[in-house]
Amino acid sequence: MNGWKGLIDFCREKGITISTAESCTGGYISSLITDVPGPSETFLGGVVAYSNRLKMELLCVNEETLIRYGAVSRETALEMSRGVGNITGSDIGLSVTGIAGPAGGTEDKPVGTVYISICLKDGRDVTEGFLLQGVDRLTFKKEVAKRALGMLSGAASMF
Amino acid sequence: MNGWKGLIDFCREKGITISTAESCTGGYISSLITDVPGPSETFLGGVVAYSNRLKMELLCVNEETLIRYGAVSRETALEMSRGVGNITGSDIGLSVTGIAGPAGGTEDKPVGTVYISICLKDGRDVTEGFLLQGVDRLTFKKEVAKRALGMLSGAASMF
Repeated sequence: MNGWKGLIDFCREKGITISTAESCTGGYISSLITDVPGPSETFLGGVVAYSNRLKMELLCVNEETLIRYGAVSRETALEMSRGVGNITGSDIGLSVTGIAGPAGGTEDKPVGTVYISICLKDGRDVTEGFLLQGVDRLTFKKEVAKRALGMLSGAASMF
Repeated sequence: MNGWKGLIDFCREKGITISTAESCTGGYISSLITDVPGPSETFLGGVVAYSNRLKMELLCVNEETLIRYGAVSRETALEMSRGVGNITGSDIGLSVTGIAGPAGGTEDKPVGTVYISICLKDGRDVTEGFLLQGVDRLTFKKEVAKRALGMLSGAASMF
């Protein structure tokens, strides 16, 4: 699969549907997906959940998870991807939560902390956490999107 | 207000909150908004509602409206902006629905048909319909986003 276009074409051919739940990338991933013509069979939609309220109301993230682990955590990422998958009924739910900066970092979770999660309809899931530092906000979004693409491609190839 | 940054800074200073519901722009508008650092006080979140199912389930667009007027219509645009405003509790709800092409056009609603709607918390709303043709998919998204920015700026200046 060569980039977004290859991924979307692959998903369309296989009849795989995807959805996104984004925090720090703010819709950049869904925008990239919809740069490809005719994505509506494959891309069912997405949620840009900046506030905790939206994470809970639209994505069904548990308040306890947000309080206990924080909005930027492995646990929240997983509940976001599962939530968007459930709401849209898609085969693959992808979520991203992180701290793009320049503000918002803590000692425990510095600027650049990111979690990407994939949840499949059959319940299988994978979540990846990493630190992406020394880049500006726009580069940050692009790099996170690139990693998300890699994970999405991996998930799609399992169908 | 000079571009997105000016708009977001203006909204932050005035304490105005915004949310987005996008169809044909696929998250491009929310991504632009979140290119500006520290948008979380101002931008509460967004929904990328490609499918009718998401328009109904997340944005509370009436099924009757979709059947009667279609997903790309003044009526659906208004219900989308009202819906995202209600869900997020934002002062301004912005929505965009349109046909980016190259496929999806009809005689009645050709490729390039767009509706942008703004709904304020106090119930006031404005919806604009136009035709944007002769441009590729990416330019289409950019131009629609520019028009949406203009309408958002106009709405913000009323606060």
